[in-house]
Amino acid sequence: MANLEKLFRPRSVALIGASDRTGSFGCYAAKELLKTGNKLRSYFINQRKAEIFGVRTYPDVAALPECPDLVLIATPAATVNGLIREAAERGTRDFIVYSSGFAEDHRCHGAELEKEMAALAAQYDLHIVGPNCCGIFNNVDKISVWGSNGDYDLSRPTGAAVLGHSGGYTMGGMDRDWIGLSYGVSGGNGSIVSQEELADYCVDDPGTRLLCMYMEGVKKPDVVYRLLKKCVDRKIPCVTLKSGRSQKGAISAASHTGNLAGSYEMFRAVFDKYGVLSPDGVEEYYGLESVLYSLNGRLPRSNRFAIVCRSGGEATMSADLAERYGLNLPDLDQATKDAINEMMPDFGTAKNPLDMTAGLRGDQDKLARTFDLLASDPNIDAIIAAFDFNDEAVDTGYDMHAFMGDPVIACAKKHPDIPLFMMPQYEQRRDPTWRKRLNEAGIPILPPAEIGYKLMQTLVHYMEYDPARKRLEWAVPERYPEHAAALTEFDSKQELMAAGIPVPKQQVVKDKAGLAAVCGEFGFPLVLKIHSPDILHKTEAGGVRLNVGSLAEAEAAFDNILESCRAFAPQARLEGILVQQMAKPGLEIILGVKNDRQLGPMLLVGLGGVFVEVFRDTKLIPCPICEAEALDALKSLQSYRLLTGYRGSKPCDVQALAKLMVQVSEYAVANKNVLKEMDINPVYVYEEGQGVCVLDALIVKGKK
Amino acid sequence: MANLEKLFRPRSVALIGASDRTGSFGCYAAKELLKTGNKLRSYFINQRKAEIFGVRTYPDVAALPECPDLVLIATPAATVNGLIREAAERGTRDFIVYSSGFAEDHRCHGAELEKEMAALAAQYDLHIVGPNCCGIFNNVDKISVWGSNGDYDLSRPTGAAVLGHSGGYTMGGMDRDWIGLSYGVSGGNGSIVSQEELADYCVDDPGTRLLCMYMEGVKKPDVVYRLLKKCVDRKIPCVTLKSGRSQKGAISAASHTGNLAGSYEMFRAVFDKYGVLSPDGVEEYYGLESVLYSLNGRLPRSNRFAIVCRSGGEATMSADLAERYGLNLPDLDQATKDAINEMMPDFGTAKNPLDMTAGLRGDQDKLARTFDLLASDPNIDAIIAAFDFNDEAVDTGYDMHAFMGDPVIACAKKHPDIPLFMMPQYEQRRDPTWRKRLNEAGIPILPPAEIGYKLMQTLVHYMEYDPARKRLEWAVPERYPEHAAALTEFDSKQELMAAGIPVPKQQVVKDKAGLAAVCGEFGFPLVLKIHSPDILHKTEAGGVRLNVGSLAEAEAAFDNILESCRAFAPQARLEGILVQQMAKPGLEIILGVKNDRQLGPMLLVGLGGVFVEVFRDTKLIPCPICEAEALDALKSLQSYRLLTGYRGSKPCDVQALAKLMVQVSEYAVANKNVLKEMDINPVYVYEEGQGVCVLDALIVKGKK
Repeated sequence: MANLEKLFRPRSVALIGASDRTGSFGCYAAKELLKTGNKLRSYFINQRKAEIFGVRTYPDVAALPECPDLVLIATPAATVNGLIREAAERGTRDFIVYSSGFAEDHRCHGAELEKEMAALAAQYDLHIVGPNCCGIFNNVDKISVWGSNGDYDLSRPTGAAVLGHSGGYTMGGMDRDWIGLSYGVSGGNGSIVSQEELADYCVDDPGTRLLCMYMEGVKKPDVVYRLLKKCVDRKIPCVTLKSGRSQKGAISAASHTGNLAGSYEMFRAVFDKYGVLSPDGVEEYYGLESVLYSLNGRLPRSNRFAIVCRSGGEATMSADLAERYGLNLPDLDQATKDAINEMMPDFGTAKNPLDMTAGLRGDQDKLARTFDLLASDPNIDAIIAAFDFNDEAVDTGYDMHAFMGDPVIACAKKHPDIPLFMMPQYEQRRDPTWRKRLNEAGIPILPPAEIGYKLMQTLVHYMEYDPARKRLEWAVPERYPEHAAALTEFDSKQELMAAGIPVPKQQVVKDKAGLAAVCGEFGFPLVLKIHSPDILHKTEAGGVRLNVGSLAEAEAAFDNILESCRAFAPQARLEGILVQQMAKPGLEIILGVKNDRQLGPMLLVGLGGVFVEVFRDTKLIPCPICEAEALDALKSLQSYRLLTGYRGSKPCDVQALAKLMVQVSEYAVANKNVLKEMDINPVYVYEEGQGVCVLDALIVKGKK
Repeated sequence: MANLEKLFRPRSVALIGASDRTGSFGCYAAKELLKTGNKLRSYFINQRKAEIFGVRTYPDVAALPECPDLVLIATPAATVNGLIREAAERGTRDFIVYSSGFAEDHRCHGAELEKEMAALAAQYDLHIVGPNCCGIFNNVDKISVWGSNGDYDLSRPTGAAVLGHSGGYTMGGMDRDWIGLSYGVSGGNGSIVSQEELADYCVDDPGTRLLCMYMEGVKKPDVVYRLLKKCVDRKIPCVTLKSGRSQKGAISAASHTGNLAGSYEMFRAVFDKYGVLSPDGVEEYYGLESVLYSLNGRLPRSNRFAIVCRSGGEATMSADLAERYGLNLPDLDQATKDAINEMMPDFGTAKNPLDMTAGLRGDQDKLARTFDLLASDPNIDAIIAAFDFNDEAVDTGYDMHAFMGDPVIACAKKHPDIPLFMMPQYEQRRDPTWRKRLNEAGIPILPPAEIGYKLMQTLVHYMEYDPARKRLEWAVPERYPEHAAALTEFDSKQELMAAGIPVPKQQVVKDKAGLAAVCGEFGFPLVLKIHSPDILHKTEAGGVRLNVGSLAEAEAAFDNILESCRAFAPQARLEGILVQQMAKPGLEIILGVKNDRQLGPMLLVGLGGVFVEVFRDTKLIPCPICEAEALDALKSLQSYRLLTGYRGSKPCDVQALAKLMVQVSEYAVANKNVLKEMDINPVYVYEEGQGVCVLDALIVKGKK
């Protein structure tokens, strides 16, 4: 791993392109250096002005009194590489390039410029952050080499690391000033020092307790995997908003930061494996940042929530949204119900969600007692206060914030093990003072309910994540088999057998004598198929005979197959006849492996036929996998119930299937540099204890 | 229909329980009457105080100088019915009861009180709004008999009618003061005058151009259907937030307003038929209210949007969200691209979504030109400005609102046929002045993007709604067959035949002679089944023989079936053997009808087997239906591709299937008061031109 110490903690910094022109990178960065003050020695470089903000300038790096630890560049793209070389010659190894116009620019020569920059980095062993970035805000050491607007406060508390391929979304995460921020990092295109390396550095700081990333793609997959594993080991929640999921979004990502967006399904599978919280939009992303920062590790014990509302409409809507997003709302304990009912004799009954009605919400003592009762209920692990908490004047004759807020805060203090969440029903102005007070009591304010409950679902998935059921290893290809070819069915199965995966007996025979010998060895019934590297679709060519029951039938089939195939494809090399034992029918499963050039081999599993083709009811798991992952993947299929006994059939041997999945994943890992893809379609799964059978297999691979 | 004129437009009003105690219904209502001023003659009734807010009071209705058109009641539940009787005796027919403690209260005697109230209403022919409501705000005639907080402005513009089963959500809709409001109506429990009747009255006002309802359930389904049809005919967008969709939500709805929530799938089907905009949450609901009010009928011509962003991250996320919610983002016309590229030579390229980059967003003229170019592009029907538009200070040296807002407004004015939408990326304070300016230019500000794009999907469905493809008739049962029984397969099919639906030839035979006659008439192959009112699961009982090919086989089958069934169920009445022509196999379809006690018969269609049972891939349509609805329903199935030719099979006869669906729906309508449910499972569908065949049928019905 690169040593990024001087990027984050330089002793001396030179800013090339320092400027006092409002709105320019050079001006923002200059102001940040002034703000950082005597934490480091700063030099402004500008050839046209003698002074910037009252500070003397230098004409170039050569003129500086020392070799700076870090050089910041805010000049037009065409000038950047020359300036880097100059500074590298002087001895600087660390750079931040704010300037745009590189790989993200598809019309000009940006991609060439960025390649040149990478070559320079290799030649001089440089760490270059950017280009096309906003730089680094290091609030731990109170050093800002940030090059954009925002003017972040170097005296705020620490805690979260926020990074992003978008400067705007990085700033969105940094803007939430109720969140303690250790690092804000915008690494831009990241082709030399990648966002994942910058994140890894941030997570190495023991003070970092939350990682938030906006990610358009990945530059160094190995680093990403190591980073995610580190977060699991250190129990640091990792929130990653992955964009570029759609076709147009991927195009946009490529032109924004030159990132290959990759298939989101693959990323999603990696995120599942490592317990990454993966929001679907910006509001959920920022919401998770707030929630996880406020909770500070105090997650609900399990998915058992009580919801408290001020009105019946809120209660009805909250119940609907909670169910849609999989939150459990247990019935309240009888003692809790009795105690609450006693407080509101004229109105509703104590249910979950609880409509407080005027009876409770209008009396601060009863309000406080209600929260206390819910937090003490043995059926409840967390409370959602699902009402608006705003600063709009309400004609009630009292301060709504204090009236509703104080009892909630008191409950949080008395019951630190029962997390509390504030869930507004719709967008509101949120009173900053009260947001702060609630946050200090560990109570996050969620986004509007439609996103807020979705966020809670993401949080529950994180709560339920169990690394013991995951095999946290990875297999990133060192090189990718661009030119790969399909093996024949026989060769594919031989590969599987060699990897210890059982397949039915098979043999290629060249003539009738060979056929007779194999028939004698295998017994009947048999399957005969054409064996030819040139015929992939054997059935179409008339190249398959099932259920062959005797030697006479086998001999007739031998002749028929060769005749049909010769007629179908006169040029094809017919190398013999593949003879296999015929398997008894079972439930059809499809296993596949797609080797992702970045993320490595992914195992796909689904039920055969329409399940995969019409309903896309499949699951992906990054290889290698363990048996628990295989079983969890099967359980997550909509069609899983067909494996557990459907319409009176017996339960299937899912253990044997899981074992096969593990073996296939290990084969894929062992072949990560040559395997392009493989299909095992179908696998027959038999009833419990009867195992599985690989019927057909197709491996596409390159040379070792 | 009830004449609700005096509820909305009384000349004289008495408020029983008028009060000056802050926060009470009686106080809110008193203030509203004072605000309404000399639009009507108001009387305050209070037995303990001589004056309320300086106005003299009366001890009771009898003491008033005239019989009031409308009586408002804000006293405890137990007193209400007596007061109603008193006023009814005096001659009043119209009431609003604000008080709670009626059917929504499941612990006390609220339900009895409400029944009593309904009996009073029937006895005296009263129109009672409520109980448990906030009343009526009539901004058209500037009359407010509203009984809750809010203090709405009687001088605001008119246009929308906002109603709700929740006072809170009704007020949420009324609170948006940039929306012209004709009526705000909270009808509470609505068991006497229902919310749907109040909405119907509002829609009869030719000035009403938008209807928004928060709906927990329905009291008078006929009125709902008529209301929705009226909205279609008058092209009034009807936005309905239906809650109580979940199990807990339905319980909450029952205790909130005493509403039967019903199955949301049924409501959803009704909404689809009538083009109702059906949001999934409160923020989307209010957002649709804003959008439809601002657009004022100017919908995009079709689903072809251009998205404009300020940054690359926004563009990537916008593309992802647009794709997730089905918005089309066409490529820009080459001339548009060229003109935009010319303006930003150093940066990105003109794509859709468009990342303006600093090159465009920093120059107001270029910004204006960009919007103008997009609005003029022949591929584009609407523009989404997907950037934040907030009042937070940004260090740019200019007024961000004017800088970004003026060009957008100019574009809206120049291109009135190209609707513009402002889509913030995440929750922001929205500057009220600018919101107003944008609204005046017909430009709505959407909720945060994750909800905003979802809202646009709802809007696109509305744009694409075509009443010509719907049969806008309804069939609400006048009475419901509580005690219904299953007909035998034979009787079920005879019913279908009598309704003109073709079924294979069938006959029940009692003996061998009868069997021989039928075999002679029908030919072979045949199916023989037990005919018994006591055996529903015929296969289990050994009561089915398929593919009977000769008279001898038929005779053997006859004996075998009777023997098996006698052994299986010795008590069963074995009334004969059902003989049917055996149909050739086709694609299996399931048709069903579920007669909803409120909404009437609903036709269900899906592909047989796992499609329905595992994937719930079905569609519901309210009966009666037309062929276009049948075809659209089939197309909306995930498994539709199996009907169009899958894996080399020929396309199915969907026309014949659609015709059958229409016939079944008409049978259901004709039997709406006796049919409970029916299943036609399976129907075989053959290839194009070959028709369909009803294999099995089960009808559950009561007595005529």
